Amino acid sequence: MKEEKASSRTEIGTLGEFGLIERITSQHQTIHHSTIAGVGDDAAVLDNGDRYQLISTDLLLEGIHFDLMYHPLKHLGYKAVVVNLSDICAMNGKPTHITVSIGLSNRFSIEAVEEIYEGIYAACRQYDVDLIGGDTTSSRQGLVISVTAIGEVEKEEVVYRSGAKDGDLVCITGDLGAAYLGLQLLEREKQLYLDNPEIQPDLEEQSYVVGRQLKPEARTDIIDLFRKSNFRPTAMIDISDGLASEIFHICQASNCGVLLEEAMVPLRDESQLLALKFQLDPITTALSGGEDYELLFTAPITDLELLKRMPGIYIIGEIKNAAFGKKLLTTGGNHHDLKAQGWAHFEK
Amino acid sequence: MKEEKASSRTEIGTLGEFGLIERITSQHQTIHHSTIAGVGDDAAVLDNGDRYQLISTDLLLEGIHFDLMYHPLKHLGYKAVVVNLSDICAMNGKPTHITVSIGLSNRFSIEAVEEIYEGIYAACRQYDVDLIGGDTTSSRQGLVISVTAIGEVEKEEVVYRSGAKDGDLVCITGDLGAAYLGLQLLEREKQLYLDNPEIQPDLEEQSYVVGRQLKPEARTDIIDLFRKSNFRPTAMIDISDGLASEIFHICQASNCGVLLEEAMVPLRDESQLLALKFQLDPITTALSGGEDYELLFTAPITDLELLKRMPGIYIIGEIKNAAFGKKLLTTGGNHHDLKAQGWAHFEK
Repeated sequence: MKEEKASSRTEIGTLGEFGLIERITSQHQTIHHSTIAGVGDDAAVLDNGDRYQLISTDLLLEGIHFDLMYHPLKHLGYKAVVVNLSDICAMNGKPTHITVSIGLSNRFSIEAVEEIYEGIYAACRQYDVDLIGGDTTSSRQGLVISVTAIGEVEKEEVVYRSGAKDGDLVCITGDLGAAYLGLQLLEREKQLYLDNPEIQPDLEEQSYVVGRQLKPEARTDIIDLFRKSNFRPTAMIDISDGLASEIFHICQASNCGVLLEEAMVPLRDESQLLALKFQLDPITTALSGGEDYELLFTAPITDLELLKRMPGIYIIGEIKNAAFGKKLLTTGGNHHDLKAQGWAHFEK
Repeated sequence: MKEEKASSRTEIGTLGEFGLIERITSQHQTIHHSTIAGVGDDAAVLDNGDRYQLISTDLLLEGIHFDLMYHPLKHLGYKAVVVNLSDICAMNGKPTHITVSIGLSNRFSIEAVEEIYEGIYAACRQYDVDLIGGDTTSSRQGLVISVTAIGEVEKEEVVYRSGAKDGDLVCITGDLGAAYLGLQLLEREKQLYLDNPEIQPDLEEQSYVVGRQLKPEARTDIIDLFRKSNFRPTAMIDISDGLASEIFHICQASNCGVLLEEAMVPLRDESQLLALKFQLDPITTALSGGEDYELLFTAPITDLELLKRMPGIYIIGEIKNAAFGKKLLTTGGNHHDLKAQGWAHFEK
């Protein structure tokens, strides 16, 4: 009968999320032959006979991942599903099923819960996914949403983070930075509203960046495009934490370096303008912003012509050997070392 | 930009957890041929070719499902896994894989997180289960643990809640009430400690009930016994919410009634004595206590001799037709209507 007390205490912030996961899981040996890949990629891979099954899970907590002041409940339900489906796409697979667990405080009415589920079901319809289970409980704290996504991929089509090779092209499926800028905008409007509730927010002009934050999409269309084009990436990951953090994961898993070209990283005009308005360097919003849920992948140089013909694919750099390091070629022609920041919840 | 506001507001407490789930999920149609069973049983059932895959998920929240004042972190990790594995057993299957997501506040040290995972891995070893993924995030509120369990079962062996038939025997795999009594004891000791931290708790004599609360087990051994005995229940569920609530689920899914015999419900001597000490009716701790994680199942009367030869199986009643209702034959010879209470988080 005592409060948590340890003889020696190490703060979680000293390791960060990925260090913590590494420390916790490094000792664990899997025993089932069906376990092809466990912790350490966007999704786990299980062998179910004909195909591989993909399993991914995310925990979304109020006050950390969302703010009910500006995340409408329906969008929140939609987004909670989408961020998990995106992980399935990152393995080059298509999602098939989800489970959703929700912890709710008494301040939620049934109508509010139904709004969350409207968003969840809208995502199910959008992505042809079955909701097959979950758990519903009360919460003494904030809203808790835990989603597990299940998907599938042909065995020869599965893509890990670890397959990038020296000389491969680095590609991205869409513009970056907007989701982060949308969040900054919503945060600013929240502060203005809290200071003076008479002020009504004007987000009309910024509907693109706000939409990227509130209603992201999973790029299942890209997975279809890859199949149709008979193309398979050598490595892939989705942009949840920011371009720099994600390319670091690929480089670490593939034991390689990278050179990204600032001028090639796609940013929409409205993102560029808004970044400057917020006195942010636009490229920083792409490198460290996150939540764009685009797919970052690598491909052999021999696929260059094929990639050029694919709509909406941007080539933004090149995989190098590990000794090269991880660098950004700026528009000014300088080489800067890339820094992986991403979300660092524990370091706050 | 506004706080949650709905034109008409219905409190969640008016529906309860199961009413809420029913209301939310009743409109949803599944589309994948592989989806054999979705929401509404202990686990979802997916067709993966040779076998059925079982998927179950539970969300455990500090202050609702556990209290860190008396749930040691290692036990908590173990229990979080076990309650999910128990759901797989309730479908007559064996667990194979789990994912674990954890939300942690800064007050946790790395050593504390490692203690939780020691318990998680101990459960993995105990039940031959692979930990294949998860999510780790910070939490502004309390500790959050979300586990998804994956299991498998031969197609012809799967058991739902819906298969009970008039005349079937109702059976339980072990004694009931102890986990609830263990919780009462720990709660009392906590209050004593809070009132006077000098008082050291003496739980030695009550190690059985405390153990049932803090370190429950999933009855995979019973599933093995069923296979070895060439026996398959007609319906099954695990005791998470209490005997009365669970038999209600079977009766509802199977469209039948039931007669339970108080005298046949197994309670250990120490549970009986402790119940009386707490001025509780012992049978009430079995009917409404919950968290024993024993398996409650039904079987054809033709299996009576087989069941009698199985160690640790108690026959506690008989399935009746729906018109009979749900009744308890008391030791005094009276018929009482059963009341399903179970956990009712939302009604508090």
